[in-house]
Amino acid sequence: MKSFMDMSQDELLTLKAALEEQFKTEEAKGLSLNMARGKPGATQLAISMPMLDVINSSSDMTTLLGNDTRNYGDWDGIGECRQLLADMMEVKKPNVIVCGNSSLNIMYDTVVRSMVSGVNGETPWCKLDKVKFLCPVPGYDRHFKITETFGIEMISVPMDENGPDMDMVEEYVNGDSAVKGIWCVPKYSNPTGITYSDEVVKRFANLKPAAKDFRIFWDNAYCIHHLYEEIQDKIPNILEECEKAGNPDMVYIFASTSKISFPGSGVSAIATSLTNMEYIKKFMTTQIIGHDKINQLRHARFFKNIDGLNAHMKKHAELMRPKFQAVLDILEEELTGLNIGSWIKPRGGYFISFESLPGCAKAIVAKCKELGLVLTGAGATYPYGKDPNDSNIRIAPSFPTPEEMGEATRMFALCVKLVSIEKLLNA
Amino acid sequence: MKSFMDMSQDELLTLKAALEEQFKTEEAKGLSLNMARGKPGATQLAISMPMLDVINSSSDMTTLLGNDTRNYGDWDGIGECRQLLADMMEVKKPNVIVCGNSSLNIMYDTVVRSMVSGVNGETPWCKLDKVKFLCPVPGYDRHFKITETFGIEMISVPMDENGPDMDMVEEYVNGDSAVKGIWCVPKYSNPTGITYSDEVVKRFANLKPAAKDFRIFWDNAYCIHHLYEEIQDKIPNILEECEKAGNPDMVYIFASTSKISFPGSGVSAIATSLTNMEYIKKFMTTQIIGHDKINQLRHARFFKNIDGLNAHMKKHAELMRPKFQAVLDILEEELTGLNIGSWIKPRGGYFISFESLPGCAKAIVAKCKELGLVLTGAGATYPYGKDPNDSNIRIAPSFPTPEEMGEATRMFALCVKLVSIEKLLNA
Repeated sequence: MKSFMDMSQDELLTLKAALEEQFKTEEAKGLSLNMARGKPGATQLAISMPMLDVINSSSDMTTLLGNDTRNYGDWDGIGECRQLLADMMEVKKPNVIVCGNSSLNIMYDTVVRSMVSGVNGETPWCKLDKVKFLCPVPGYDRHFKITETFGIEMISVPMDENGPDMDMVEEYVNGDSAVKGIWCVPKYSNPTGITYSDEVVKRFANLKPAAKDFRIFWDNAYCIHHLYEEIQDKIPNILEECEKAGNPDMVYIFASTSKISFPGSGVSAIATSLTNMEYIKKFMTTQIIGHDKINQLRHARFFKNIDGLNAHMKKHAELMRPKFQAVLDILEEELTGLNIGSWIKPRGGYFISFESLPGCAKAIVAKCKELGLVLTGAGATYPYGKDPNDSNIRIAPSFPTPEEMGEATRMFALCVKLVSIEKLLNA
Repeated sequence: MKSFMDMSQDELLTLKAALEEQFKTEEAKGLSLNMARGKPGATQLAISMPMLDVINSSSDMTTLLGNDTRNYGDWDGIGECRQLLADMMEVKKPNVIVCGNSSLNIMYDTVVRSMVSGVNGETPWCKLDKVKFLCPVPGYDRHFKITETFGIEMISVPMDENGPDMDMVEEYVNGDSAVKGIWCVPKYSNPTGITYSDEVVKRFANLKPAAKDFRIFWDNAYCIHHLYEEIQDKIPNILEECEKAGNPDMVYIFASTSKISFPGSGVSAIATSLTNMEYIKKFMTTQIIGHDKINQLRHARFFKNIDGLNAHMKKHAELMRPKFQAVLDILEEELTGLNIGSWIKPRGGYFISFESLPGCAKAIVAKCKELGLVLTGAGATYPYGKDPNDSNIRIAPSFPTPEEMGEATRMFALCVKLVSIEKLLNA
C-alpha cells in the first residue's frame, strides 16, 4: 500500500470507508484480549511448576551454612540465594540483599527511606523544598508512579537506541543539586526494548553529581531475559564502573525472578556498595526480621546456579519468540511503507514500543478498546501519564497466545490506520 | 529459704560464697542456650511441615474466584486467605488486606507512610515539629525501634494486669495533639503475658483524640496463641468498639501466622476501616503489584478455616506448655519467698516477664551470659532500651527443649540470687 502521506483526500476517504467496514466486522467478533501488562502467559507459568515440588515435607530445610530457613534469621537472605542472584546481577555476593517477592517494593522502600531519613546521613528529601528525578522516556509507568506519589518532580529525558540522552543527563545531574535520582531500565528497556550502549553506561558511572545523595536507580529487570540465543545483549557492570570512576555509592541495582519463576511469588534483590548496604541494614532490620527464606531455598535449589537460570530462560524465550514474531510480522505486513507508525524489534524483555503519528496514541488505544483489545493506557510510559506527543503505545505480547497476538495485532493495525486517516483528514 | 530481706549481712555473705561456688560449677559446664527471642522451637516447626506438600506441581493454582495465584493480581490478597485471617482477627473480610510474610513490616510501612504522606490527608508527620507515641511498658522492643528510628518521641505508660494505665493514656491522647499513636499488644502481651480487660479495650475505643490522625497500633500478634484449652482469653472487638464509639478509623489491627506456620514464611495482615483501606490502597498499589499469593493459597488450603487454625494452635500449645511450666516450676522452687523477684504466669503468648529488684536486671542478664545463657538485653522492653528501674527481664521459653528450659531457669535463678545479694550488700 502506498504511504498515507502521498494519498489525496479522496483516496484517504475511500480507504477510510473500507476500513470502517472492516472495523464493524471485527467489532462484531466481540473479542476480549489483554495486552496491557507484562504478564507471563500460561505456558510460561507451566515451566516453573516443578519448582513447587523442590521443597516438601521431607526436605532438609537448612541452608548450606546450616541455618534453618523455617525460623527467624538471615535478614539479608540465605547464602545460596544471594549467590544465585549475585550471579544473575553480575555482582559479588556480599553486595546483594535478597528481599521479598517484589523488586518494585524495594525501589519504593528505597525512595521512601530517602524521603524520610535521607541517603547515608544526608538531609531527608522530605525536608527539602524541591526534589527532582530524571525519567528516560518512554519508560516504566510504575517507576514514575512512585516518584509522583511522593511529590518528586519528574523531568523527562529522551531515549534513543543507545539509551538516555546523556548530554541532558549530565547537564541535570552535574548541574542541579535538587536532582536526586534517575530511573533506568538498562537492558531490554521497558518499553522500547533497547539496551544501553557501553558508552552510555560508562557516562553514567562517570557522572559528577551536584548532589552527594544522587543515586542511579538501575532496574535491571530483564538482565537475562533474552529473546534469542544468538544475540544476547551485554552491558558493562555498573557497580564496578561506578567504583572505577570514584562513585562507588552512586548506584542501586534491582532485579527479581518475577518473570523467571512466578510473578508475585519470586524473589527480588538489591545490589549496591557495602557502604550503602550498611545504611540500608539499619532500616531494613527495623522493618522486618527476615524475608521468606523457604521461598529463597526453593529458588536456590530449583535453579541451582546461573546455568540453571539461563537454561530456564531459554524455555521462556522459546515461548515468547513466536508472540513477538506474530506482532512484528503483522505490523510489517500491515503498516510498512504507510508512514503512520514505527517500532523497534526488541532482542529481549517484555515489550514492543510503537510510535504512532503525533496526537494519535490515545485515540488508537481507545479504538482498540472498542474492539475488545486492552492496551496499556496511552501516556502511561511518560511521567504523570502525559506523553507530550501523544504517540507512544506499549504492546505487551506475553500473555495471549501467538495466534491471539497475531489477530490482536491485525486489529491494532486497523485502528492505527483508521485513527491516522482521521488525523490526516483533519490536519 | 527465708526472704533475703530478712537476712543479716553475715547470712548474705555466707550464702553468697555458696552461690559463687555453684556458679563456678555451672560455668564449667560451658552451656550455650538462647532464650533471647520468641523463636518457635524445632518441634513446633515440624508440625507445620505438611503444609509444604499442599501446593505442588500438580496443584490447581487458582483461587475460589478463579484467579491464577501464579500471576500478577489481587493486591489485597486472595479471597480465601483474606477470609481465613479475617476469622482469626475476628473482623470482616472486606476489612482485611493480606500482605507478605511480616506484620512488623506492615507496621513499619504504616508509620513510614504517616511520616512521609500523612494519615488520610492530614499533615505528614515529618512536617511536624514533634510527633509522640505512647508505649505501654514493658513492651515489644521491635515496636519501639520503629518509632525510635523515625525520631518519634516515645512516652512510657505503665501496664498492670488489666493493660495500660488508661487514665494516663486518656490524658495524653485526648490532651496532646502531638500524640499520634500507641503501640498495643492487647492479648497475651509481649512480654508480660497479660490480656487487656474489657474495660480497657472499651476505654481505648472511646478515646477522644486531640489529633485527628491519632491511631491505635493494635498488634494482635497472639490472638489465638493460647497455652491452655480451658482458659482462653477473649477481648472485645476493637474495630467494632471504635465504630460504636464514633471512632471508626482510629485503629489498625495487625496479625500474622509467623508463630502459627513458619516465622518468615507465613502470611500477615492488616485490618482496619474501609476509609483507611482506601487510603492505604493508594500507596500499597504503588509499592507492590501484589504479595505472594501462592503462599497465601498454601496457607488457605492447609488450614482451611478458623477451626483448622485453632486445631493447629492446640498442637503448638501442647509443645509450649511444658516449656513454660519448666520455667514457672523452677522459678517457684528457687525464688518463692526470697522477695528478690516476681513474675506472672501467662495464659498464652511467648514470654514470661520477670521483675527483679530495682537496678539488677542488666547485671542478671550479664551474669547469665557468663554461663552461656543468652537473654533478651535488659532494658529492651522499654523505649530507647532504657528501663528506668532496671528490673524487667523477658524470658522466651519457646526455642529450647523443656529440659533445657528447666536447666536454664535454674541458672537464671542462681544469677538472680547472686546479683540480688550483691545489690543488698552494697545498699
